[in-house]
Amino acid sequence: MVEIAPAGPIDEDMRPGEKAVALPERFDAGLYFIGRIHTPWTERGACPRRGDPEEGPLCTLEIDPRWAEALTGVADCPRLQVLYWMNRARRDLVLQSPRHDGDTRGTFALRSPVRPNPVASSVVRLVGVDGLRVQVRGLDCLDGTPLIDLKAQHG
Amino acid sequence: MVEIAPAGPIDEDMRPGEKAVALPERFDAGLYFIGRIHTPWTERGACPRRGDPEEGPLCTLEIDPRWAEALTGVADCPRLQVLYWMNRARRDLVLQSPRHDGDTRGTFALRSPVRPNPVASSVVRLVGVDGLRVQVRGLDCLDGTPLIDLKAQHG
Repeated sequence: MVEIAPAGPIDEDMRPGEKAVALPERFDAGLYFIGRIHTPWTERGACPRRGDPEEGPLCTLEIDPRWAEALTGVADCPRLQVLYWMNRARRDLVLQSPRHDGDTRGTFALRSPVRPNPVASSVVRLVGVDGLRVQVRGLDCLDGTPLIDLKAQHG
Repeated sequence: MVEIAPAGPIDEDMRPGEKAVALPERFDAGLYFIGRIHTPWTERGACPRRGDPEEGPLCTLEIDPRWAEALTGVADCPRLQVLYWMNRARRDLVLQSPRHDGDTRGTFALRSPVRPNPVASSVVRLVGVDGLRVQVRGLDCLDGTPLIDLKAQHG
């Protein structure tokens, strides 16, 4: 058994038609946060529904020094896939009403941050790499969001 | 602190030019496996480098009954993004030589399963949903790979 850090505060609001289930009693695998994402958005209501790799504002991936050499060659990747952890999202909803229009759908038919594993994924456009800071356009998340991964995006 | 299950066997081979770093002492977040992926491939060498959503073989996402209602509406999603856990990949390499050609690159400039958080991502084409089984084309992983997430894929 390996310990993990305690979670931070979770948003627990529910809307009409939504349904929660009991979460499993333990986790099956652990994630390391490899850095933080800096964006212009400090409140959830201000975040765009989806990032815009062309016209979106400049955002910065700040990588932990431990992983510095893993950035070798990233400057040559015009597009990157970024995975990040929506650390304020509850994880137990199976039915959601994200649009406030009474239309309830299953979590796996949505891209809402609320899901058993709140891993968000965006394809971004690289602007530049400066040491441990990777500047991109195309993100949609709160300032300070934990970074899980970045990968070359082909095609 | 929350416990997580112990990891299974990890592939620990290294190639010339590759470099490992010390991993953090603890995890920052935990994942639930929400099901398993069934594919035709039972050895790593047999897996394709990338999945083919058009011509690739039929693969099945087998969802844990706990999450059954989260599949509501998935049958209406022609394309899905699938996230899965490359549970045999080592996590400590920052420089890799994946092509055996002496070309060493940083982990974040690659899509290799070997990375701090071995979360793989593929966009697949939906073939059908039958109860807890979601049939798709476009995966590239070993039979039995743990499933982390599926989401509607737009565009």
